[in-house]
Amino acid sequence: MTVSAVSDVPSTMPAHLPPTDAKTQVSQFMRGIQDEICAGLEKLDGVGRFREDSWQREEGGGGRSRVLQEGDFLEQGGVNFSEVWGKELPPSILKQRPEAAGHGFYATGTSMVLHPRNPYVPTVHLNYRYFEAGPVWWFGGGIDLTPYYPFAEDAAHFHRTLKTACDQTNPEFYPVFKHWCDEYFYLNHRQEMRGIGGIFFDYQDGHSPLYRGPHPDKAAARYSNQLPTMEPLSWQQLFQFAQDCAQAFLPAYSPIVEKRRHTEYGDRQRQFQLYRRGRYVEFNLVYDRGTIFGLQTNGRTESILMSLPPLVRWEYCYTPAPYSPEAELTERFLIPQDWVNWQPN
Amino acid sequence: MTVSAVSDVPSTMPAHLPPTDAKTQVSQFMRGIQDEICAGLEKLDGVGRFREDSWQREEGGGGRSRVLQEGDFLEQGGVNFSEVWGKELPPSILKQRPEAAGHGFYATGTSMVLHPRNPYVPTVHLNYRYFEAGPVWWFGGGIDLTPYYPFAEDAAHFHRTLKTACDQTNPEFYPVFKHWCDEYFYLNHRQEMRGIGGIFFDYQDGHSPLYRGPHPDKAAARYSNQLPTMEPLSWQQLFQFAQDCAQAFLPAYSPIVEKRRHTEYGDRQRQFQLYRRGRYVEFNLVYDRGTIFGLQTNGRTESILMSLPPLVRWEYCYTPAPYSPEAELTERFLIPQDWVNWQPN
Repeated sequence: MTVSAVSDVPSTMPAHLPPTDAKTQVSQFMRGIQDEICAGLEKLDGVGRFREDSWQREEGGGGRSRVLQEGDFLEQGGVNFSEVWGKELPPSILKQRPEAAGHGFYATGTSMVLHPRNPYVPTVHLNYRYFEAGPVWWFGGGIDLTPYYPFAEDAAHFHRTLKTACDQTNPEFYPVFKHWCDEYFYLNHRQEMRGIGGIFFDYQDGHSPLYRGPHPDKAAARYSNQLPTMEPLSWQQLFQFAQDCAQAFLPAYSPIVEKRRHTEYGDRQRQFQLYRRGRYVEFNLVYDRGTIFGLQTNGRTESILMSLPPLVRWEYCYTPAPYSPEAELTERFLIPQDWVNWQPN
Repeated sequence: MTVSAVSDVPSTMPAHLPPTDAKTQVSQFMRGIQDEICAGLEKLDGVGRFREDSWQREEGGGGRSRVLQEGDFLEQGGVNFSEVWGKELPPSILKQRPEAAGHGFYATGTSMVLHPRNPYVPTVHLNYRYFEAGPVWWFGGGIDLTPYYPFAEDAAHFHRTLKTACDQTNPEFYPVFKHWCDEYFYLNHRQEMRGIGGIFFDYQDGHSPLYRGPHPDKAAARYSNQLPTMEPLSWQQLFQFAQDCAQAFLPAYSPIVEKRRHTEYGDRQRQFQLYRRGRYVEFNLVYDRGTIFGLQTNGRTESILMSLPPLVRWEYCYTPAPYSPEAELTERFLIPQDWVNWQPN
């Protein structure tokens, strides 16, 4: 493995090794960002308060789940922190990180899903996580937005905020992680994006390729068949990157809430929101790695399924009226596009 | 392979070979039972009418989906017929039937899910299917009941009707297939049965063991460590068995509907029904082989997801009041038990 000299790491220490107190540093941050996000959301909501449940995991570790129900703009919101350890990572992860086989593992992270009441306010999801297992460690996570009604300026604001956060570490990050996000939050059985994306990354250890998704060819094609390469990053730099991304959530989302929360809506909009929430359930239960992994490995079910909406509707063969905003959502809006450079006509 | 002489099969023909017109016979039956069930349900409902959508499958075959929405007792009901063929069965099925590898396949079946409006009327699911692939063929399917409120006499009636249908072929069938059903419709992440079961069987070709589920030891333990053996059955006998089971649906379910459909209920019962419907969604999207297989292999999504309820609710950490009927449902009712021999106190 190559080793890069990075200024904030002692020169005698290989940059790719985490500091001895790495777990403490990251778990403190993950707890802290849960606090910050909950405080920010309570302020934004103005009415709802988070209720906390602490839980222990038999095999090692635990977490604290926080749920806000029946708030003002929030119909339901959940923000989880967890820190767990065990004997070995599951096969699905070992396939990506074979060096971790036979080693104990440590994982800590924060995740969040918000289901607003007003159909003009988008649902949003965030997750940041850190793993150590034997000789390997990595950061992963991201944030993505799922609107019910198409407002290009909201999508542009969201993506611009994330790009600014990513650019602090490296301007190559945002386009790769934006593409990965578009690819990940996709419902194959509906041939539909879940929302307008954001950023998503996994297995980031400062040395591996930036993109480690299932279709490297397609990702590379966006860069004339070569994915960006860069100087290896230190643990500290990647940790800083994860912090920058997590801290971008409130500035990325709050202005959208403020702008849309008081928009009047009727039964038509509410019914469409409940219907589209069905797609969220389908994605989380059929595709989402975190959800499936959690359910299959004795995670705390109520915390994992906190991501499911409080009320959902399915309707056989529903088709929105032609040229309606509901039709525009799937036909023109939920399509991967360059939101950062969007301009009003 | 052993060959048994069975009276209704010419003695020159091995009993384990299907007749040359097997596909036609079974697909005609599957279409016919869809017609019978839809006609029976329309009569029972009195208000709703099934709407039919025919569809073609690019890789071969197609089907006809029928949905009844906003009926009198039926909030939504779907009854599908399909007949499909292709180059090779998916790996998940080939693992159970390795002899089929490299061969084309044919499959036909009927499936049904009913979501009644009144919370005192249970949800019910039925599926019968027939496969041919190279040297092998088999029947599979079953029927199971998912009540929202506990009525032991309803569960007893349902199971007794199924037992009577099974006993026409062999009295060993019902107990094995009842056990397999209890095992299959189980939500591991909730440690909960989906409902009160019924019968479930798969890979029945007249020669393989009756029970081919994941836990033969546990199944065998119910019979002093040996599963029932019997004379091999002919294709005709198994086909007759599948028909008997499918035809048992209306007599098994209709009397329960008649008894409960006019029971008065309020918001509490409706909210509990919507909440429990969430378990149905969780089972179908996380565990159900048919659903996952269909979604992952380019099936008709709207027909597959017709099984999902029209309206569903999730509630973080919901717990029913102690000693309430809602608490009794999961604590005492949704537990595998000998419904056939149930007696009122």
